[in-house]
Parts: sequence; structure tokens; C-alpha cells
Amino acid sequence: MPVSLNPADAAFETVLRQRLPKTCFRPQSPHYQTEPRGFFQGQAGLVLAPASTAEAAEIVQQCAAAGVGIVPFGGGTGLVGGQVMETGARPVILSLERMKRIRDINPVDNILLAEAGVVLADIRAAADGVGRLFPLSLASEGSCQIGGNLATNAGGVGVLRYGNARDLCLGLEVVLPDGSIWNGLGRLRKDNTGYDLKNLLIGAEGSLGLITAASLKLFHRPDHQLTAFLQVASPEAALSVLALCQSRLGGMVSACELIHRQGFDFLRETMPQIRLPFAKPGEWMLLVEIDAIADGGADTRFEAILGQAMEQGLAQDALIAQNQVQRQAYWTVRETIPEANRRIGAIYSHDISVPNSRIPELIDKGAGLIAALGDFRINCFGHLGDGNLHYNIYPPRGRNRDEFSDRRDSIKHAIYDLVYRLGGSMSAEHGIGRLKLDDLVRYGQAEKLAMMRRIKQALDPKGIMNPGAVVPP
Amino acid sequence: MPVSLNPADAAFETVLRQRLPKTCFRPQSPHYQTEPRGFFQGQAGLVLAPASTAEAAEIVQQCAAAGVGIVPFGGGTGLVGGQVMETGARPVILSLERMKRIRDINPVDNILLAEAGVVLADIRAAADGVGRLFPLSLASEGSCQIGGNLATNAGGVGVLRYGNARDLCLGLEVVLPDGSIWNGLGRLRKDNTGYDLKNLLIGAEGSLGLITAASLKLFHRPDHQLTAFLQVASPEAALSVLALCQSRLGGMVSACELIHRQGFDFLRETMPQIRLPFAKPGEWMLLVEIDAIADGGADTRFEAILGQAMEQGLAQDALIAQNQVQRQAYWTVRETIPEANRRIGAIYSHDISVPNSRIPELIDKGAGLIAALGDFRINCFGHLGDGNLHYNIYPPRGRNRDEFSDRRDSIKHAIYDLVYRLGGSMSAEHGIGRLKLDDLVRYGQAEKLAMMRRIKQALDPKGIMNPGAVVPP
Repeated sequence: MPVSLNPADAAFETVLRQRLPKTCFRPQSPHYQTEPRGFFQGQAGLVLAPASTAEAAEIVQQCAAAGVGIVPFGGGTGLVGGQVMETGARPVILSLERMKRIRDINPVDNILLAEAGVVLADIRAAADGVGRLFPLSLASEGSCQIGGNLATNAGGVGVLRYGNARDLCLGLEVVLPDGSIWNGLGRLRKDNTGYDLKNLLIGAEGSLGLITAASLKLFHRPDHQLTAFLQVASPEAALSVLALCQSRLGGMVSACELIHRQGFDFLRETMPQIRLPFAKPGEWMLLVEIDAIADGGADTRFEAILGQAMEQGLAQDALIAQNQVQRQAYWTVRETIPEANRRIGAIYSHDISVPNSRIPELIDKGAGLIAALGDFRINCFGHLGDGNLHYNIYPPRGRNRDEFSDRRDSIKHAIYDLVYRLGGSMSAEHGIGRLKLDDLVRYGQAEKLAMMRRIKQALDPKGIMNPGAVVPP
Repeated sequence: MPVSLNPADAAFETVLRQRLPKTCFRPQSPHYQTEPRGFFQGQAGLVLAPASTAEAAEIVQQCAAAGVGIVPFGGGTGLVGGQVMETGARPVILSLERMKRIRDINPVDNILLAEAGVVLADIRAAADGVGRLFPLSLASEGSCQIGGNLATNAGGVGVLRYGNARDLCLGLEVVLPDGSIWNGLGRLRKDNTGYDLKNLLIGAEGSLGLITAASLKLFHRPDHQLTAFLQVASPEAALSVLALCQSRLGGMVSACELIHRQGFDFLRETMPQIRLPFAKPGEWMLLVEIDAIADGGADTRFEAILGQAMEQGLAQDALIAQNQVQRQAYWTVRETIPEANRRIGAIYSHDISVPNSRIPELIDKGAGLIAALGDFRINCFGHLGDGNLHYNIYPPRGRNRDEFSDRRDSIKHAIYDLVYRLGGSMSAEHGIGRLKLDDLVRYGQAEKLAMMRRIKQALDPKGIMNPGAVVPP
């Protein structure tokens, strides 16, 4: 559905200035034109930051009337270029940065109602303030915004027990492509009144409407957490440890992160100040967390499980965090790896998922395929419990990723082809954005793409919402 | 979007007989024309029962070519008339009864792949056979089919901990309205490749496509369950007991069912063979279940919580099931209430949800509104933890519901108007079907209805899928 859009030119800006307060108009800055991995350079646009849903609706109405494209902009932390438009008519860059109000928080109903621009860490802190947990947790939580988290259906480390952004959202307020406002801010756990529009908007990456607010699920805070860092014999062994934990601790297992030694090496190389566990790290490590109840016997059981894992040779070493400081230190190691990766500079980063049972085969065959392509470094880590691994390829030490840009496609396809042979996905949690449009065509299904195009056409006939993102032309 | 459809007449049947095996053609029977509450009398149709997805696709293709409507038919247990079409051109009634194969079950990946016609109880049994739990559980599980459970996003008693049908489904195989097959049978916990079509099809009640198979989430079986039947002082007290349990047992609370004494009276009246707890039942009772780990200290804690509830006057009596037989007996009471209701015959049954904090107000004000309308009996019971209550209105003892059919609308609107004032829903888990189309117009939002119509038009332009259901004309 190729659409021709008009530029957000001086005349259009004049129209908007008559209808919106000065404060909505922001100076253009590199912040709105760059993305973390530097693969995309967004063009300049008319940057607008509404302070309210009404102002946002006014902007969308005017864009719809004038046929001007809108690029929604949240924390700017997305990794697939969904927030930057490189080509096409000069767009409106609609930043949610001023919509940062927590409208309500109710520990009886266990809901928190936040505007799209609220930073994830602030939502977690607000929930904590009333003795509740908002479990969405990712490396970028200090800067990403909940609107973006929902638009991309963000995942992170708490998915195993609490689900991804989609599972944590009860309702949405959305400015639709015609500028009308859909108030779907329900607070209900169950509501079967017609089509599930909430989940259609979640993960649509701003291409079907602009999320301006969301009602979110809160949970009672676990009063006791057990966190262990293990050296495991292999990915198979890691899966066995997870199975042991899940069979004997039921739904209490809240996180299970696989980490390759390469991640430790990158941390040493780029951030020596980060304290690492284990004098001699093994090749594979596992970070496991249990949300338990105090005096619940989970401690005893967890220690028994770890002991059993050592006896069976699944693990060589296991450290249990003795206090919150140590627990935080373990998590800092895990959550700093993405920044270390960024500093090293990946040639290509695969955000993949496969059924858990295929993970060992993926890791084994993947290494062979990459080795056949050259002398590269692989950093494979991620959410073992969800079958979601980040499989990133780096140049040899001392070389720069740009020297290998001609190899990106062969590296990418080698791994994705394998992933699809194993029944997996080439975007587990980062989305499609603009980076993976070709991959969606290559690996997606004709029937699915046809449905996506029909839905985009039906809900955004002028194609003004995040043009060029998610839906292949 | 009023569409004109053609009848499944003799000529059309002849075309189909050339393309499908004899075994697909089923004799018409009342089974396909009735629904449990007897509010709808479906017209006769051409009943077809494909044995495979390919046969189902052939049927849909021919219906699309001929412009013949299709009414998907599962277990026939739906309560909103989604499975019976009263008027319009003679449809194809497409029964999934022969697609009852469990294609795969994998306790490593914790998935079960079932065809749409598999009865829910058979799925639960198959999971149990490999030491796993499929937690979807409802009164009709012995006859409802998983395809229907997904088409209607069924809820039930396990939602509090495990979510509804939507939350338990990883992927779908769907015959689309043009007869093409979308194989979305993923087994992945995380997959962000484009729009969430799975959740759009789930809950669409067959109006956007025909679900032919699904991959379902399995869970490790809790090795220890604690079940208690309480007499509680009031709905407020019931909410306080739930909060106590959730704050001190975290995510272990797996069910919390509120039951009014009226339900016990109906059971005594219609099924005296059912053994009821409590010599003198109070006005309100609560059935609470904890999925715990053995030796996990949960027993001690649960008993302490119940003790505390009694001391605080929240509960007058509390029985803890001492064994599986007793546990089953408690659940039989809860799960037989709907059959007792059916035998008494409701004038109107409200399937409603509100934010938990509004439940006491709903029950209090609701009783006043109904009393003002006449001398009726109210049976209010359901899933307290989800804010989902079944609020059913019955004639005085000895009278028949049909004498009051002229009162149905005033009764219905009195409660629904209240529910919407409290931020609730008029269909928490039963869906819209044909029964609640008017209510969706009255209580739904214009923006939402517009989106639904556009999506229906985009994906089913000929309007052949379950004509007249879910989407108001």
C-alpha cells in the first residue's frame, strides 16, 4: 500500500501554530533523529510534544487532513528503527515526553493508570511506593517510556513469570489515525465485548494509532526473592536446571537468564569497574531468580535443587545472593551486558526465539555457521525461560564492525534461516520497525502479511501513522 | 455492513458433494439449532463436519465463491447465541466435531497442539497424562470444544492465576474467510513479528475466520493444592480475605469464587443429591484455592490467614478440604450451580465484570434496583478475583420465567446501566454472539464499533463468517 504523503512544511506548521500552544513545538535535535545502534539516521521533522490527549488528537487530526506522516517518538530506545524515518516527506515527529502523568494508582484494584510518556522506571517506583510490583523490567528502563513499551510489546527479564508488556496491560487510550480518541482505558481483568483492539494496537509500533495512556496491572510484591548465579555445563544443562526449578518451585521461578562468557569478556574490556562473579567463569552461566514467600520453605528447596544440579554435573558452581546488595550486583552484570555490546559494536544482533527444546541445537549449529563465515565473536545471552536469545555477532578483537558491513546480510540470513528451520522467530521482543521489513517478507507468511496490509488499510487508509514501519510495502 | 448472502441450497450442496467425502455431510439435528438457555432457535442449515483443515478450507472456499454464510459450531455450549442463526439465508453449519486430534504434546516445551474439535476435558486429561496442567476450567468442560473456547475467549475458574483462553494460547491455525489457511501455529513464548492476529481471531466468535487448531500452553502441575470453603460476612469481607491471601501467598492463589446462599437453595431445590457444606450456610460463601508446593509452609500460612479472617470477623466458618475427594466435592458444588440455574430458568443472566473495589457497591445497589422491579430471586456468584460475577435474575418460587419475559429488558438495563456507571462490562467472559448485539451498541463506544466494522469489512468483505454475530449491523 504505497501512499504519497505531504511534507510538514512551513504552511502546515503555521496552521498548527494557530491551534496549539507554543509549548508543543520543540526544537529539532539529534535526539529525535538517532537510534541506539546507529544503523539509521532519521531525517529532521516538525517535532511536536503535546501535553495532553486533546493536544495529541488535534495534531493527528491536522496531519490526517493535510496527509502528513507522523512518527511517534517515546524514549528513543527501540532497536529496530521504528522511531526514525530516514526518507519520505518531512514528517511530524510526535514526542510523548510531556505526557508523563500517572493519572491514578489503586492498590485495591491493583492497577496503575499512566500516560504514554512516563518512564518505565518511574512506573516501577510508583508501584513500589504503594507496596506493589509492576514487573516489566528491561535494561533501558531508566529511559524507555511505557507508551513505547506497549507499542513494541516489550519483553525483558520478567516475562517468564509475569508476561510481556501485552500481558501487563488492561486497557489503552489511543488517538486513532483520523484524530478521534478511543477511550479503551478499562480496568477490567475480563471483558469480552467484541474484537480485541487493545492487543491489536499493542505491538503495532504506532502504525495503527497513537497510544496516549494505559491502565497497567500491578502485583503484590513478593516478600522474598532468591537469586542465584550458576556456572552451568552447557545450554542443555541450563535447560535441565530450569526444568528442575519449575517442577519443584512451580510458578515461583520469575527469571532465568543465560549468559555466555563472551558477555563477561566484553564487560571486562569496556567496563572494568563492573564486579563480576566467579574467579574463573565457565563458558555458560545462568542467573535464576525465585519470587517466593518468606518462611515458605522455598529457600531449603532452592538450595536442594542447586545441590542436586551440582551432583548431576549440570552446574559446576552456584552462588546465592546473601542480601539485596549482592542480588543487585548480580542483576547489574546481566543488565550492563547490552551497554558493553553497544561499546564493542555488533556487526549484526539477532533477537530470536525458538521452542526451548531447540535452544541447544540453535547454539550448536549457529556457532558452526558463523565460524564458516569468518573469525567473528559471538555473544549469545538472554531469556532462556522464554526461548528468547540475543545472538549478536562481533568483529575480531581490535577490528571495527564497519569493516564487515558487507557481511551483515550473510550473517543475518545464516542465523535466521536456521531459526526458522527450528520453528523460531526473527523478532522475539524488539519488533519489526524499519530494520526487519525485508525479513518479515522473507520469513513471514503471505497470509499474515495480507491480513496486516488489509488491517493497516482499513484503520489508517491515508497511511499517516509511522509511515514505512512494520507493514512491508 | 448489511450483506446479502445466498442460501446453502440443493445446487450448492451438489457442488460440495463433488468435492468432499460423504462423511463430511451430517444429518440436520436439533443439536445444531439449540443453545443451552433456549433463547434462540437456530434455523436448519447444511451441516458439514470436515475431518481435516484441508476439508474445512474447501468448504469455506466454496462458501466464499457462492456467497453462502457459515455458522461455526463447536460444543454448542455458548450462552449468547453465537452458534445459532435464527434468520437469514440458509447457512452452512460447520461443525468441528470430527477434528478432535491432539497433534502433539511436548512436556519439554510445555505445549499441546490440539485441533479445534477436541473437548476441553480431553485436553486437560492429556496434559495430566504427561504430568502437566492445562488450567482452563469451566462448568461445561465435558462438552465444550477448545475451538469454541478460543473463539469466545472463555474464562472460568482458573483465570485468577493462569489467565483466560487467550492467555493460554501460543498460536492458531485458521481458515480465513477467502478459504486460505493461515498457519500461525507457533510454539513461541515471545514473537513480535508484526500485528497480533492471534488475539484478534481469539474472541472474534468465528466472525473473522475459522479456528481449526491451536498450540496451547501447559504448566507444571502444582504438587500441592489447598482448598477452603468459607462463610464470609459480606462481599467486602470476601475481598478482604482475597487480599489477605494474595498479600501473604503471592501468586499462589489460583481460584476465588464467591457464592450466594441462593445458589445453595437452587441446588437443594433441583439436585438434592449434591452434598452441600455447612449445616446453616450464611448469606455469602467463598471457595478459595491455593496452588502451592508440598512442604512449602503454605499450609501453615493458609491456616493462619483463615484464622486471622475469623478473628477479624471477616469469616464465620472455614472448612479446609482434607483430601482430593473433599476438594472435588467442594468444586462440584460450585460447578453444578449453573445447571441448577438452568433448571430454575433465569429471566435474565448478567455476565458482568467491574473493578474489584466496586463489587460491594454493585451487589448492594443491584439488589435495590431489582427489588424495585418486582419480587424476583437473585443468584449472584462467580469469579471474585477477576471482578467477574454472574448476576442472574429468577422468578419467584413456583412461577415460570416466561411469565416475565416482558420484564427482561428493564431488568437487563437496570443492572447494565449500573455496571457501566461503575466502569464495568456487560460481557466479562461469555462474549457478544447474537444476544448482546444491541447492548454492544448501547454500551459500546462509537470509536470501537467503527474499528470493529472496518476490520470485519477488511478481513471478511463478503460477510460470510458467522453472519450477524458480534459485529452490530
